[in-house]
Order: sequence, then C-alpha cells, then structure tokens
Amino acid sequence: MIKAGIVGGTGYAGVELLRLLAGHPEVELSLITSRSEAGLPVAEMFPNLRGYVDLIFSDPDPGQLAECDVVFFATPHGVAMNSAAELLDQGVRVIDLGADFRIKDVSEWEKWYGMAHSAPQLVAEAVYGLPEVNREAIREARLIACPGCYPTAVQLGLLPLIEQGLVDIGQLVADAKSGVSGAGRKASIGTLLGEAGESMKAYGVAGHRHLPEIVQGLTRAAGAPVGLTFVPHLTPMIRGIHATLYARLTNPTKGLQTLYSERYADEPFVDILPPDSHPETRSVKGVNHCRIALHRPGDGDTVVVLSVIDNLVKGASGQAVQNMNLMFGLDERAGLNAIGLMP
Amino acid sequence: MIKAGIVGGTGYAGVELLRLLAGHPEVELSLITSRSEAGLPVAEMFPNLRGYVDLIFSDPDPGQLAECDVVFFATPHGVAMNSAAELLDQGVRVIDLGADFRIKDVSEWEKWYGMAHSAPQLVAEAVYGLPEVNREAIREARLIACPGCYPTAVQLGLLPLIEQGLVDIGQLVADAKSGVSGAGRKASIGTLLGEAGESMKAYGVAGHRHLPEIVQGLTRAAGAPVGLTFVPHLTPMIRGIHATLYARLTNPTKGLQTLYSERYADEPFVDILPPDSHPETRSVKGVNHCRIALHRPGDGDTVVVLSVIDNLVKGASGQAVQNMNLMFGLDERAGLNAIGLMP
Amino acid sequence: MIKAGIVGGTGYAGVELLRLLAGHPEVELSLITSRSEAGLPVAEMFPNLRGYVDLIFSDPDPGQLAECDVVFFATPHGVAMNSAAELLDQGVRVIDLGADFRIKDVSEWEKWYGMAHSAPQLVAEAVYGLPEVNREAIREARLIACPGCYPTAVQLGLLPLIEQGLVDIGQLVADAKSGVSGAGRKASIGTLLGEAGESMKAYGVAGHRHLPEIVQGLTRAAGAPVGLTFVPHLTPMIRGIHATLYARLTNPTKGLQTLYSERYADEPFVDILPPDSHPETRSVKGVNHCRIALHRPGDGDTVVVLSVIDNLVKGASGQAVQNMNLMFGLDERAGLNAIGLMP
Amino acid sequence: MIKAGIVGGTGYAGVELLRLLAGHPEVELSLITSRSEAGLPVAEMFPNLRGYVDLIFSDPDPGQLAECDVVFFATPHGVAMNSAAELLDQGVRVIDLGADFRIKDVSEWEKWYGMAHSAPQLVAEAVYGLPEVNREAIREARLIACPGCYPTAVQLGLLPLIEQGLVDIGQLVADAKSGVSGAGRKASIGTLLGEAGESMKAYGVAGHRHLPEIVQGLTRAAGAPVGLTFVPHLTPMIRGIHATLYARLTNPTKGLQTLYSERYADEPFVDILPPDSHPETRSVKGVNHCRIALHRPGDGDTVVVLSVIDNLVKGASGQAVQNMNLMFGLDERAGLNAIGLMP
Repeated sequence: MIKAGIVGGTGYAGVELLRLLAGHPEVELSLITSRSEAGLPVAEMFPNLRGYVDLIFSDPDPGQLAECDVVFFATPHGVAMNSAAELLDQGVRVIDLGADFRIKDVSEWEKWYGMAHSAPQLVAEAVYGLPEVNREAIREARLIACPGCYPTAVQLGLLPLIEQGLVDIGQLVADAKSGVSGAGRKASIGTLLGEAGESMKAYGVAGHRHLPEIVQGLTRAAGAPVGLTFVPHLTPMIRGIHATLYARLTNPTKGLQTLYSERYADEPFVDILPPDSHPETRSVKGVNHCRIALHRPGDGDTVVVLSVIDNLVKGASGQAVQNMNLMFGLDERAGLNAIGLMP
Repeated sequence: MIKAGIVGGTGYAGVELLRLLAGHPEVELSLITSRSEAGLPVAEMFPNLRGYVDLIFSDPDPGQLAECDVVFFATPHGVAMNSAAELLDQGVRVIDLGADFRIKDVSEWEKWYGMAHSAPQLVAEAVYGLPEVNREAIREARLIACPGCYPTAVQLGLLPLIEQGLVDIGQLVADAKSGVSGAGRKASIGTLLGEAGESMKAYGVAGHRHLPEIVQGLTRAAGAPVGLTFVPHLTPMIRGIHATLYARLTNPTKGLQTLYSERYADEPFVDILPPDSHPETRSVKGVNHCRIALHRPGDGDTVVVLSVIDNLVKGASGQAVQNMNLMFGLDERAGLNAIGLMP
Repeated sequence: MIKAGIVGGTGYAGVELLRLLAGHPEVELSLITSRSEAGLPVAEMFPNLRGYVDLIFSDPDPGQLAECDVVFFATPHGVAMNSAAELLDQGVRVIDLGADFRIKDVSEWEKWYGMAHSAPQLVAEAVYGLPEVNREAIREARLIACPGCYPTAVQLGLLPLIEQGLVDIGQLVADAKSGVSGAGRKASIGTLLGEAGESMKAYGVAGHRHLPEIVQGLTRAAGAPVGLTFVPHLTPMIRGIHATLYARLTNPTKGLQTLYSERYADEPFVDILPPDSHPETRSVKGVNHCRIALHRPGDGDTVVVLSVIDNLVKGASGQAVQNMNLMFGLDERAGLNAIGLMP
Repeated sequence: MIKAGIVGGTGYAGVELLRLLAGHPEVELSLITSRSEAGLPVAEMFPNLRGYVDLIFSDPDPGQLAECDVVFFATPHGVAMNSAAELLDQGVRVIDLGADFRIKDVSEWEKWYGMAHSAPQLVAEAVYGLPEVNREAIREARLIACPGCYPTAVQLGLLPLIEQGLVDIGQLVADAKSGVSGAGRKASIGTLLGEAGESMKAYGVAGHRHLPEIVQGLTRAAGAPVGLTFVPHLTPMIRGIHATLYARLTNPTKGLQTLYSERYADEPFVDILPPDSHPETRSVKGVNHCRIALHRPGDGDTVVVLSVIDNLVKGASGQAVQNMNLMFGLDERAGLNAIGLMP
C-alpha cells in the first residue's frame, strides 16, 4: 500500500482527493494537514466521507509527512514551493495540485503570481503532470506539477491540431466556462449562490493565471510561440468546465475526426465523441474523463473543438491520482474507475 | 456472476440502475429493454455510461428475460404486474422498482393508481423491499416490491419512534422535499428548468400515491392505524429527498439519540448523526445511505426527525441493488460502496 | 416628495430597498450610508441600478440623516437601536428592517440576540409593521419594526385560524423553506453556490431568532400562549419563502376558504388562491404579495396552509415601503405595483 | 390608449409580453389567442399576472384581431406569415416576435426553416426591428420582424467595429451562452431541470437558425459579406444571454471605448460599461438593456466584446414593445422603465 499524505485539504481539491484516495485500492491515507482546522475530524467538514475516512486534520508535521510515500499539496500557490525540497530529500514523492511548479519561466511565474519563487531549482526538475503529453517523464518523476483545470481542458482539446501543424497558431481562441467550484471553497461574496446563481459572466479577460500555462504547453507542442485569446466564464453550476476552442485551419483536411481518435487511441481518459456530438459537462461529473467533439461549421476554415472535464477530477484531483498511479507503476486507472452520476 | 436484465430503463431509475449494476462486482448486465428506444445504444442516451455499458436497448423478449437470474422493472406502474408471473414461473427473481406490488390492499391500490390490478395473487407474495424492516423475508423472496422514495425516507425516520410506541400515532406530519428527478425523465412543462428552477412549491396535498404506502408501513410497525399528514414539495435541485418529520411524544424520554443509534446499529446504510446535526441532501448524493438527525426543540413534546436520502439510490435503484444482494446471498453492500460526491 | 435615507444598504435588503424607492413616485432618495463602502457609487456594487440611482455610499452623518423625512435601517441587529432615538427626536420617522424593535419583551430579545438592548423605551413605542394586523397603528407611528421574513409568511398564513379560535394553539407546526438570500450578502462558506446549490437542509431546529417573534404575534392574536414548532430550511434558490403550516382543527368547519377570503378581502397584498391550489414561490418573485392556499387533506382534522412570499420584498424591503406609504398617507400600493417576473 | 392583441402567448415570450403590456401606461390589452388553451384565464397559467391581467385565452378570431391597433405574434415560425397580410390590409400594425420576416432572402429563409414561405412580398416590406439600426424605418413601419435573441446580443456587440471597418470581417467568432428559457416553454426532455441543470453544453454548432440572421445584419453593416462562426450554448439558468465576441483588429486603434460610447450615446437601452468591466447577465434580468464591455487582452490584435441581454426582454418581448413605442410615436422607454431585480 502506498502511504499518502495531503497538505491542505479543506478546499474542494482536497475533499475530492480524499474521496478518490479513500476509494483507491492501493493507497493508505496517512494524514491530512490543515493549520486552521487541526483537530477537526475530516468527516465533520465533509459528511460524504462519514464512514469512509476517519482522519483528523492535523498541524503540518514534517516528520510525519516524511514517512509518506507521496505527499499531495492541495494548497494555494506559494505553499508547496517552501516544503517540497525537504520532502524530496527524504525520498518522498510530491504532487502539487497548486501552481508553484507549472511555469518553467520563473520570472513569468513571479509576474503572474505576484511573489518571489522560493525554489526555482525545483521548477526545472518538476514534470508537468499531463499524462497525455508527459507520460514517460511522469513515471520517473519525483515532483509533479499538476496542470490547472482550464489548461487541461484547453490543451487536450487543441494539442492534436497544433502537434500536426494544421492551424494558425497565432490566432487561437479558448472560450471556457467553469462551474463555481473552480473558485474554491472559501468565504467570498462573488461565488455566493445569491450572486453567482442564475447568472453568467466572463472574468479575468485582461489576463488569467492559466493563460501563460496554456501558452507554455501549446508553444511546446507547436515548436513556436502561439497566440491565444483566453476568456474564462463563471457558470451557475458547481462542477465542470466546457472549453469551446476556435482555430483557423491553414491546411484544411477532412480527417480531423481520425486525427483526434488516433492521437488519443491509447488514452484511458480521453474520449473522442462521434461526429456532430455536443458533450455535456455533466457527462464527466465526478470522473476523470475528458470528452471531446470536433466541428467544422459549413466545412469552412474554422475548427471548433468542444472539450469538457470535471474541473475537480481531471482538472485537479483525479489527474493527481492518475499521476500517482504512473509514478508508482500502478494501473493508470486504479481508483479512477467509477462511473459518473447522471442526472 | 448474476445475470441481470432491466425492463424499462430509459428513465432516471433506469440509468441509475445501469450505473450501479455496471459497477457491481458480481453482476453481468444481460439486457435492457425499451419499446420506444429499441436499437439505441444505452450510452448514447446516457453518456456517463460510455465505455462502461455497451448494451443496446432491445424490444422486450420474454425468452431472453427468462434467461436472467433477476429482472428489474424500472417501469411505470401497471407494467410489472403483467409480466412478473411468467418470469417467476421460470425461476427468475423479480425486483419491481415501480408501485405494482407495494400496497397489500389491492382495492386501495386500485383506488390510488386508477386501474385494475392484473396480478393480485402476487401482491400477497411480494415482499416489501425495505431491508431495515424485512431483511429476512427479502433473503427468501422471489418478488420484491421496492419502496417508493418518499416512503423510504419517511419510514426510516419514523420507525424507531413508532415501534417503541413513543408518539401519538394519530397526528404524524411528514413534510418532504424532493429534487425534480423524482418526477422522472419525461417531457413535461412542470419540471422544465424554466418552470421548476428558482422556485419551491408543494404538490399533491390532497393526496399523493405514496401516502397509503407510508401509512401501511407505519401502521404495521405501530400495530394500529396511524394518522399521517404528508405534504411533498418540489425543490429546485436534481437529486435528494429531505423529509422533516414531526411527532408528538406521548411518553417523553431523553433517550431518543440512543434509541435510534441502537435501532440502526447494524444497518449498513442508515447513519444516525450526532445530536444537533442537520443533514444535507448532498451528503448522500449518489449513495445508498439514509442520514438521520433528531431534535426535540425546547425539550418539548415535539420530536423533529430530519431524514435525507438520494431519491434515485436509497429511494429507488440503490435499494433495489441492496435487495438483490440480500436475495442472492451477497454482501449487502456489494456494488454500493462508492463515496458520494461533494460538492 | 418624501426624502428618504438608508443606513446600511450593502446587503440584499438594501439593494431591494434602493430598487423599490428609486421607482417610487413619491420618494426622493437622499442618501445611503455604509462605513465600509463610503465613496463607492451604489450602481457599481449593484449594476441593476445603473442609470437609475446615482447615489454614492457615504459615511453615516447624523446631520444629513436628520434632514430626511424617513430613514430606513437595513442593518444587522444592534445598529438601529443606537441611532433611532436621535432621529426621532428631530422628527424623522424610522423604519427598521432589522430585529431591534420586534420583540416587546426586552429580556427575551436580549436572550435571543445575545446583547444588551440600548433603547428599551423605544421597544415599547415601536409599532410592529405588519399592516394586515396593525394598519392603523402604523399610520400614526414614528418608529416601525419591520417583521422578519419567516414571521411574515407564517403569521399571514396562520392568523385567520388563530383569530377565530379554530385550532389547537398548543401544537402548531411551521415548516419553512427559504432561498439563500435570506442569509444575506456576506462572505460565508455555507451559502456558496458550491455548498448550498443542489442541496436542501434544515437549520436552527433547536431555536431560530424568528421563533419568539412568531410566537409573540400568534400569542397576541390568540389571546393565549401558543406552542409552535418552527423548522427553517435552506433551499437552493435565491429568493422566496414557502411556509407549510400545520394546525389541528378543534372546531372543524367547512368554511376555511371563505374565512381566509374574508379576512384578507381588503388587503392589497394578500392573495387567497382558489381551492386545491399550490402556490409557487416564483409567483411572487420581486413583488410584495403573499399568496396563500388552504388544504384539509382527507377532510380530516389537520389544516395545511401554504404561504409564499418573496423574502426580500414582503419579507423585508417591500413591507418597509408599504409601511412608509401608510405612515405618510400615500396609497398603500405606491411603488409596489410592478408585476413579477415569470419565468 | 393603444389596443393591443397577442396571437400565441402561452410561451415565455407571450407571458413576458403580457407582463410588459399590462404595465404599459398607453396600452390596453384587448385579447390574447391560443387554440390549445382557449377558455383558460391567462392568470391561471401565469400566476404572476393574477390581479393584473384578467384576459382569457380565446380562439383566434380575425374580426377581433382586426379591431386592434397592433397585433403581436408570439408564435412559432410559420404562423405570422399566414395572417399578417389580412391584418395589415385592415390597418392593423403587426409585430412578429417569430422568425417569419427576419431574413430578406426568402430562399435562404426556406432553407433554414424547412418550409415554403407563404408571404414573400411581406418579407420585402417588413422592417427588421433593431431600433439601434433601423429606428427611423421602424417609426414608419406597418410590419416589424423582431430580431432573435442571439442576433440582438451579437449585433449590438459587433456593429460599431464593423460599421467602422476596424476588424477582419472574414473571421468573426460569436460564442453565446443562453439560459434555457430561450428554448421555449414546451414539454421536452432536454430542458428539464434534471437534464439541463448543473451542466453546460454547446448545441447547433453545425448551423443554428440565428446564424443567417446575424450574418445578414453584419453584412449589411459591413457592406460586404462577413464570415462568422457562431456557437450557442445551453446554460443552467433561466434567463439571460452572454455573448462573447472575438474579432481581429485590422486597424488597431486605442479608441474602442470611445467608439462604442459614441455609437450608442443616444440609445436608451444600450449601456457601455467602463473599461475592464465584466457584465453579468443578471444585471439585465427583466429589463430591456444590453450591457456591453470591451477588452483588448494584452493590447493585442484581438478585441473581445462582452454583450449581455435578457433573452426574453431585449431579446424578444421588450424589444417588441420598444418597436411598438416607436411605431406609435410614444416615448421609446414607455412601459420599459422598471429596474431589474438583483439578486
């Protein structure tokens, strides 16, 4: 059994990680830390866990964490970078669900996240945990930077086009819609049901922290700098991301459907839908799948890719578990086999 | 492996049954019938099942059904009663998620359901599938009448009080709130998001079909006729029932918490919460648990019981699987172990 | 024109009051105060007011408030009691949407609200602003205690039965369901869309601050102490209260429908629905009406009253305006004539 | 007083028209027809109208309609084209909220709407009722084709850029999100709360009937054919459209904010928000405003326009009333002055 610890864990990624790890056949949950909630049984905060998880939030204790095989950081940015080195030195694998190690260009990271990076050397080592791109590196990694939720949906949707050089990489558009759980489980007015319910709005149009992450990934795939307009929207639902992606074909081809099917043929969690499909976010609620549909309206130059994920699963905790499975040589699907709820 | 067939299955109880059976370690899904959808792959209607269920809806074929070990009817009332006898004769166990066999008094059933009953002899044989009351009979049964959703939440909430003779059984009140999936997956104006969203209403106050079913169960527990006022409400959410139950203590006792804890101590799916709790319906979303909390405001004569279930799981398909597990000598929790989603 | 000021106003009662007063033909909005938001244009916080309200939140200034004809307190409890006397002394009418003057028994108030009352003499003078009970007193009042939202829905629903002595006043039940705006516009985890969405729960079963207020009103109507069990529930919608009220007829009568119709015949904002109706909360969204339906299931002893209001209008700001209209000799409906939105 | 009749009216545009006309100071509602609901009081179907509208749905009677000054068709496409000529001949003005007269190219209309057009001569006469483009023609018109909901939001958002020739008109993208009321008030599975709630999906990517309408309007403004990719999405809310519009600047200019402010300076219902704004659909709930914000991320070539309307008001019935006001020489804002609800 893999001994797993969680740092943080009072947020939505945390409870989702607890759900997935508690049901994982090869994992033993060892501890979960939270300064603010130390002493509170986890199942009191998250009653879905009653009867399944009897851990109590504890103060972070480096000694206890060092006894784990793997430690997940489900913390805001700026936390994992201060603790990862010490754990790695003691042979603990680290999977950061936050943003600390996602951006390879440290000055770029510092600009977007507004703080100095305390562990730039680890940024270089960290493997970006998108298995559909970096599977082999993930298997060998000590430190994983789990992708953000929007970056997962957008990159999986655009990668085949970009890898094959089929579209104008200077004018990509990603119009993404997220449920409010993406904003986290913290007291705030903007995501009250009374404020975010029954309404739709864009936010962060001038610049969202996931933009440089997506651009980094697509640029790497393209081998040249991409130009992306990224507009996230807050949607009145709890879970789910729907990314609607627009690209101009420079090399019109009729084989998009085949291209995507082949690109993801061996991927356990990427599901290319039949032609003329419109994936619903609810079709991936609670599961690690990304469902993708392809359109080329009027057989014109514009490709429209529809890509849906559950922001808390493939966009966060499920992907973290998928990475863990790869790192420890398990079946990549272990603990991620449940069927989603519908309705 | 138990060979299972489903008759009906295009509704919400159907898709939920498919989800649970497809993930059940001891079950092989053999067929699912639907006259209206024959030929359609199940996963096209319910994309959460893509990759897990490759069945195609088929026309009902008695021969194929007879090869199953168990057949579930996820049909409107009036269907199972016409087919059950033939299946039972061929040694197939039958679990009816509909209402055909729930009411022992056939004339009462005919009054509430507005049709003649075609198999009254089976009504007598059928076992009411509430394991917390009839576990031993269920183990031996050929034919199970699965309880309705409201009756499950209300009976589990009131039974300990009534069995012990602690309350005035002439003046019980059950104020129940249900998500809209309880109304089924059928085209109707009243449950459109545009109609049922952002609103709350009672319905059926003059008389709801679940009333005689609840009264039958409570009367049996009391050994005398009970008087119940039952008011169901339509709530702007998809899943979940919250039953708020009011009873007057005739025999005031301080030990209600203990009474409930002991009554359900061995029940795998009834969870008595600590004093002063307020269960949320979301705490049982997708799972087979009933969570119950007890209150006695101002230490007065009135007991308030809060009882929550997922109407599609413990209130329908999960309970059906629990019954199947009992009938086939399996672990009662088989296939029902998943942890609920939160948020 | 009546010069109106608002103290507080960054909450939901505040924005609703702004909406109603800005559209009121006889009112001139003079100022709105907020310590925390001083300097912010109101329409930046509440964009529905763009083009209609060009006020800027200002620091509370007793001199400016004293120039108003009426000042509304849309503040948490404990604020109005410290400022009302000074305003009244200068001839300003005061309408408190908070709880400071609702409970006549000051020690009872202090017990429920957890603080000492700083103006007990004003409690005696304040008129409880439920026009359906106190219309004449309201016309003459200097100081109005606007009823709470639950108390409005519950009292309007039960008063005719109690005034006529038709029910057992020792065993009343009020099962009330409220949208989340009732919890106010403040940062909190419990009312996030991610927490309160898609779920239902009771709260405060052990005792809610609206209980003594309701009991006070019903006791006054009965001329004897009433026993009430009151259970509020949080419902996944923004606006609306649905109160389901249960009472046992001691004096069975067939004339309930007539009783209610006559009791409220001259009331502009109480609408008795035809027999067998089930009012929806959305039917009063944004308007000052209370819609009531009566049921007597199975012609038994139990009366079920269904009473719906918009918690922010008849349950708060609309009722405040109705009170103001009465105090200033206007048409009671002035500024309250808009038709509700549906859907 | 203007005598107004409504044909159709059991849908969402119908009830919204009733709400607006019943509150309009210069209108007398004369009749409302519905074959299916003849005899039913309107307020029974739409309880928000209780006390305000005492009309009864009647069978369509050409004689009665001919006595109106104006007749609104709130019908599916294919109805108004069969009745408009007769009404116009008798001097009745006609405002069609449906699609019959929106597309000038009759063969194009027939292709998209799948039926022969029965009144092509009226198509030529009909004025497209977007006051921000056709105000003077509307004043003189006998027959108005009210724009669709998406076309209103998209055209108002893009027109200034296109009229000024600032963007590449060959590669426009309109990513639009609509509440479910846009799908109408008809029994269907896809818009049940159980299906459309808590989920997001695109639909009609291959081609939506509003596409040719938008293209026609933008092409007219550009003086040359435009290329538009239009992707509508179903959003889990009742009202509102959020159009996110992407265009590539060919003539980069810093003055976009000024351009829009000037273009709409005299428009009573178009509100250009300050720089860096993100309009919420709820800010226009129930009102006739279109709120627009402009962004140019990273000062690059791509303009992002955010445009929100209430699909049932500016996107349908409110715009119809605005047209009526113009046709009858009234204040354009008459009956459209109410402030929106928030929350």
